[in-house]
Amino acid sequence: MAPTSVPLTFVRERRIRFSHCDPAGIVYFVNFFDMISGVVEDWFGEAIGLPFHEMHIVRRIGFPIVNTGCEFFRPCHLGDNLSLELAIGRLGRSSIEFHVRGRVGDEEKLSARHKVALMNLDTLRAMAIPDDLRTKMLDYVAPSST
Amino acid sequence: MAPTSVPLTFVRERRIRFSHCDPAGIVYFVNFFDMISGVVEDWFGEAIGLPFHEMHIVRRIGFPIVNTGCEFFRPCHLGDNLSLELAIGRLGRSSIEFHVRGRVGDEEKLSARHKVALMNLDTLRAMAIPDDLRTKMLDYVAPSST
Amino acid sequence: MAPTSVPLTFVRERRIRFSHCDPAGIVYFVNFFDMISGVVEDWFGEAIGLPFHEMHIVRRIGFPIVNTGCEFFRPCHLGDNLSLELAIGRLGRSSIEFHVRGRVGDEEKLSARHKVALMNLDTLRAMAIPDDLRTKMLDYVAPSST
Amino acid sequence: MAPTSVPLTFVRERRIRFSHCDPAGIVYFVNFFDMISGVVEDWFGEAIGLPFHEMHIVRRIGFPIVNTGCEFFRPCHLGDNLSLELAIGRLGRSSIEFHVRGRVGDEEKLSARHKVALMNLDTLRAMAIPDDLRTKMLDYVAPSST
Repeated sequence: MAPTSVPLTFVRERRIRFSHCDPAGIVYFVNFFDMISGVVEDWFGEAIGLPFHEMHIVRRIGFPIVNTGCEFFRPCHLGDNLSLELAIGRLGRSSIEFHVRGRVGDEEKLSARHKVALMNLDTLRAMAIPDDLRTKMLDYVAPSST
Repeated sequence: MAPTSVPLTFVRERRIRFSHCDPAGIVYFVNFFDMISGVVEDWFGEAIGLPFHEMHIVRRIGFPIVNTGCEFFRPCHLGDNLSLELAIGRLGRSSIEFHVRGRVGDEEKLSARHKVALMNLDTLRAMAIPDDLRTKMLDYVAPSST
Repeated sequence: MAPTSVPLTFVRERRIRFSHCDPAGIVYFVNFFDMISGVVEDWFGEAIGLPFHEMHIVRRIGFPIVNTGCEFFRPCHLGDNLSLELAIGRLGRSSIEFHVRGRVGDEEKLSARHKVALMNLDTLRAMAIPDDLRTKMLDYVAPSST
Repeated sequence: MAPTSVPLTFVRERRIRFSHCDPAGIVYFVNFFDMISGVVEDWFGEAIGLPFHEMHIVRRIGFPIVNTGCEFFRPCHLGDNLSLELAIGRLGRSSIEFHVRGRVGDEEKLSARHKVALMNLDTLRAMAIPDDLRTKMLDYVAPSST
């Protein structure tokens, strides 16, 4: 069943560190993908209740990345507090397409699409997202995209 | 003038190292973006004749990333020789959209679109790609995309 | 003047993420150095009141690493909460030798020595630690090492 | 048997890339540890004939880091060709202490000690270095240190 009310957004802040920045003094873009991936990891652990170590070791499932892309509007600088907002753009049978937006204050910095697909780590084959997980995921699905 | 013959492809190999791989034993996707960015850096230095340290320090220009995305077809493993093939999908007035494909042997692993835009590092404003650089870049433009 | 009472320890927790871990499923050692460096950055910003962006841009000073080393007692795993405890082993005229210990619960994971030296970023020469900073640093100096 | 003649040095070059450098325009020290570890990986594969994927998967042995440290003499910059020279400082029953020096031209940049210990990945216990490997390693042992 599709969500009937306003979908949830999962928000995490990242302080821009010295090690994130390049010789131009701005965040090296590759580090944004690491941050996006980290927010997805936090979301699985905190919003869905499935920490990665449990997902991989106990349940033997993984979510390899199928497709990812990011548009960068403005650079981020050392000391910025980057707010990363995760929602689900599209929830498929075995795949999730996340939409992650990054802001510093009111300034939009980036917008990413990040698609993962559920895989059984023993058979290395795609599998449907189990119902116990799907139910919790539905809260984060944007209505226009179901 | 558009290229009249077969466009060039700039190819570099990357050996997949231990440090590229994640607990699933495959390359952590973020490292692919670092490799793609490194091939672009090699291309500027070796094909266009503009090493990054000269570009940034002497000529005071930079190529910040506007937009990047990658589709992952199959995982890469420790010890693989990943061949990265760079061509230009679209060459704009101040922007370049690279197309980078990754293969291990005959197996296609990834396909990326990576768009950068030329910026004057003193004014922090977009600028047209200088003619001396543009001329060399044209050899790498795929005909269908000019 | 040497500190007369129990020195302070600056403690920060790091959750071990998927991206920190290697194909053996444990933290790739290089990431520990990044975490250690990040705790030093946090300490400058939060304990000494000198965030890195202010240090570098406004005051034009930097603290390049002179020497660093780490002993690893036991591996860290995905999902671990690593507690990093920073103290000053030795405070010189222009240098600071940090001692950073890492634990997960009661289990000691690592012990690092990390020495930085203050440099004027305009002259690129060593300089004495300014008194306003030194005063705050003294609280973190282990008595045996002054 | 101890080596009787001049010990071998295993040398690999690393071009300093944009992604290695920090906002001060010099190599972020953490990346040196990644390079050192990479040279050790190259040495196992090319000098000892035991590539990491074979070591881990076929022979089920690993070489976790026990202890590592590095002294930094001078910074490295974008575009530098860093030459990394690996020798063995001390070869123990189950451990190897590498000595890695880094130069750019005649200028010494860094000197590292990097100690690893052989582990059986199935039992997670230390094990003696097998004779077929030890024989090849002896060529790289500095005479004063045996």
